[in-house]
Amino acid sequence: MKRIALDMDEVIAHVEPKFLDLFESRQGYRPEREAYWGGKIYHLPGGEHLREHLHDPGFFADLPVIPHSQEVVAWLQEHYEVFIVSAAQEFRNSLADKHDWLHRHFPGISWKNFVFCGDKSIIQADYMIDDHAHNLEVFRGKGLLFTAPHNALETRFTRVNNWLEVRDFFVRELAQGGQ
Amino acid sequence: MKRIALDMDEVIAHVEPKFLDLFESRQGYRPEREAYWGGKIYHLPGGEHLREHLHDPGFFADLPVIPHSQEVVAWLQEHYEVFIVSAAQEFRNSLADKHDWLHRHFPGISWKNFVFCGDKSIIQADYMIDDHAHNLEVFRGKGLLFTAPHNALETRFTRVNNWLEVRDFFVRELAQGGQ
Repeated sequence: MKRIALDMDEVIAHVEPKFLDLFESRQGYRPEREAYWGGKIYHLPGGEHLREHLHDPGFFADLPVIPHSQEVVAWLQEHYEVFIVSAAQEFRNSLADKHDWLHRHFPGISWKNFVFCGDKSIIQADYMIDDHAHNLEVFRGKGLLFTAPHNALETRFTRVNNWLEVRDFFVRELAQGGQ
Repeated sequence: MKRIALDMDEVIAHVEPKFLDLFESRQGYRPEREAYWGGKIYHLPGGEHLREHLHDPGFFADLPVIPHSQEVVAWLQEHYEVFIVSAAQEFRNSLADKHDWLHRHFPGISWKNFVFCGDKSIIQADYMIDDHAHNLEVFRGKGLLFTAPHNALETRFTRVNNWLEVRDFFVRELAQGGQ
């Protein structure tokens, strides 16, 4: 079976709404998506404090699940080995929260297939689905860029805009024998 | 630069003395090393409860450092990329403890080079130093088996008995151009 390395934040776990809530609670308004399209919410004027919250215990504990990720991952597991590969090591307090989150929302994925790393160049897999171009740049397999506002202007990788497009991509791979 | 994937438990962090302390506190005597040579302390009669302690918060926080590992790792980092690769995901409460332990005892290794995984077959590196044969079995690079009582009878891998032997191995590799 071929192996898929699947990122967490902005691929299966939605960070953007939490950043918007924190921004709004401090600044008194909720920025439009157009204001940070092609960039990061925490690079907006008034958003400089947001990235610090990634160190807070609990920040990653209650993130919403990205739509359709659960059903498509369950389907992918019928055809591929699915590993969760999160660059979590920058945030010591995220580790247990992410572990709990995965058990809660993706109980069909074993802890044996969890990887919390820093630099993803150490990952050996056939496919990687990630929202960060810098992770795909150092990956030797086939990279899929999962659309997030910050990568909207990136053109170097095969893009998937949502989980239905992920499913369609692997339906085509399977039809071509990419299993 | 070539890359070394370095295990934690029984390679840089010494678990054995803690298991012996726990065994002694329950059973009233400290087993001789010969009693569990070639096997696990927790397979001794009266040791069945020991493995459960791996789930305890704090279990991994205060493990002693394996002799000479700090100085040899610092030297290795002059010639290789050193990644810490620990199969920590079985133990949710170990994650933060291991992160803190690494920062405390190996401050020269960045969090970017920490990997907490389950199945080490996902690791891409040139060398792996590990005390578990099952991790080396699935590794595609050069595996070094770091001697621990449980692997004493294993004969399939290049064995290193201590960190001075690790240094000697890599001195020879460097002399042969394995950088």
